[in-house]
Amino acid sequence: MTPAVDRLVVIGVGLIGGSFALDLKQNGLVREVIGVGRSASNLALAQSLGVVDRCSDQIASAVASADMVMLAVPVGSMHAALTEIAPVLPARCIVTDVGSTKQDVIAAARAALGDKIGQFVPGHPIAGAETSGAAAARVGLFAGKPLILTPLPENASEQVERVAALWAACGADVNLMTAPEHDAIFAAVSHLPHLAAFALMDELVSRGSRTSEANQSAETYLRYAGAGFRDFTRIAASHPEMWRDISLANRDAVVAELDAYIKKLGEVRNLVAKDNGGELEALFSRAREARQNWNKNT
Amino acid sequence: MTPAVDRLVVIGVGLIGGSFALDLKQNGLVREVIGVGRSASNLALAQSLGVVDRCSDQIASAVASADMVMLAVPVGSMHAALTEIAPVLPARCIVTDVGSTKQDVIAAARAALGDKIGQFVPGHPIAGAETSGAAAARVGLFAGKPLILTPLPENASEQVERVAALWAACGADVNLMTAPEHDAIFAAVSHLPHLAAFALMDELVSRGSRTSEANQSAETYLRYAGAGFRDFTRIAASHPEMWRDISLANRDAVVAELDAYIKKLGEVRNLVAKDNGGELEALFSRAREARQNWNKNT
Repeated sequence: MTPAVDRLVVIGVGLIGGSFALDLKQNGLVREVIGVGRSASNLALAQSLGVVDRCSDQIASAVASADMVMLAVPVGSMHAALTEIAPVLPARCIVTDVGSTKQDVIAAARAALGDKIGQFVPGHPIAGAETSGAAAARVGLFAGKPLILTPLPENASEQVERVAALWAACGADVNLMTAPEHDAIFAAVSHLPHLAAFALMDELVSRGSRTSEANQSAETYLRYAGAGFRDFTRIAASHPEMWRDISLANRDAVVAELDAYIKKLGEVRNLVAKDNGGELEALFSRAREARQNWNKNT
Repeated sequence: MTPAVDRLVVIGVGLIGGSFALDLKQNGLVREVIGVGRSASNLALAQSLGVVDRCSDQIASAVASADMVMLAVPVGSMHAALTEIAPVLPARCIVTDVGSTKQDVIAAARAALGDKIGQFVPGHPIAGAETSGAAAARVGLFAGKPLILTPLPENASEQVERVAALWAACGADVNLMTAPEHDAIFAAVSHLPHLAAFALMDELVSRGSRTSEANQSAETYLRYAGAGFRDFTRIAASHPEMWRDISLANRDAVVAELDAYIKKLGEVRNLVAKDNGGELEALFSRAREARQNWNKNT
């Protein structure tokens, strides 16, 4: 039996924070959800949609009576939010988050919470989408999706277990790992593809003429873009501020991934330039086999 | 009224060639379809699925009585196929193709067909998929999709119109442009994304440990890959030989696109490394806006 939450404060009632609240409400695992955030219109929408029971612009008074705080703001805003809640955080209140990077959020939490750091259980659900805001929140978003916790040495095991149990009740597949492991893995499988999609889209739309024959506007290019382009660039519609924060928060791992990718693209470029069809086909075959094998397991 | 084809020879009965045959049959626009190809088992499958009426391993005798030949082999195999049909090509027979690159296929056709070059009407339907073979062929594949013809000065206008009418009967949106325009556009919106997806997948699966903390196998990485990764890498499951041929056939434009993309990724890398959140967010915002606007029109 998952112990229910009495009063949950969700700071940032968007896709992720809102869906977490909806799932807990749906499962009868929370008595009251209070929404806090920058946008009054988004909060009003969240309340009208039943994502939260009420809203507050007084973060201190909301948190003072909470037994759980969910931080669901962009990772660049975590430190400010943590600083605001730190002085009023009740001793028995658990703070958790859904930030896409973990080492920097943990560093922000240590700086802001001081000796209350043991109350912070860092988390990350793998359920992103290119939609955002309270309107995008929905029951079941996390079902069957991985949820990662990167517990701190200061966490009591029952605090970690409580957060894990709530996510499991949302249908998530709970995994524990260290924060550096988390950040290295997600730089590769999430942050790099997002930056690569943003870069490709920006390169295409910001071009003028490249060759005398190809004096085409971006509009002409996009007119002939097909299904492959559509899927490849879908994540280029993701939230700019969120991805700015993630890129900077996980800077070292992201730069390492970009360097490795640029190097690999340079190899491909040279194979094409040198007409090396054999090596090119071998590379494509390795990629295809890996992609098809992964697909089978998904 | 589209004039029907009496005997259509499809060389390469895969996704594209097979779907073209199925659409013409469905619309009563062809009396007989003869399949020719490298793989006897694929041809037998094509016949058993009704994609072709019969198969032949005698390309010369099949073509000698045809009034239309559809070349649907990888672009690297076009020259060999054209060389084989050239000596037996009847004077009233139209040859067309579905190659993803046009300048090199036209060059191959000029070399192989000589003074019969006016019988060749170059084409390219934008309806790729990561599936291949006769089993992937289906009615309606081209409905609502762009179809590009890059006519030659030697083509009679009624030959171009006949090919255009057949594609229009398949539901395709027929567009005319020059071969260099075609190749520049598709290097950007198709060839580059495919190479970028192959490269990302190969980079991920061929890595060892990168950092002491991130000593993870590709399997661990892929376990946590989510929906963004899935869509970004879908086209990495595309056909290696086909994409080897396209890359080399459109080499100059592909190299130019890879260079521009590597340059843009380098800019992104430097913005991250230098903590330039403002420029990074501006770039992401431009990309997102372009992607969302394109999405609306699709």
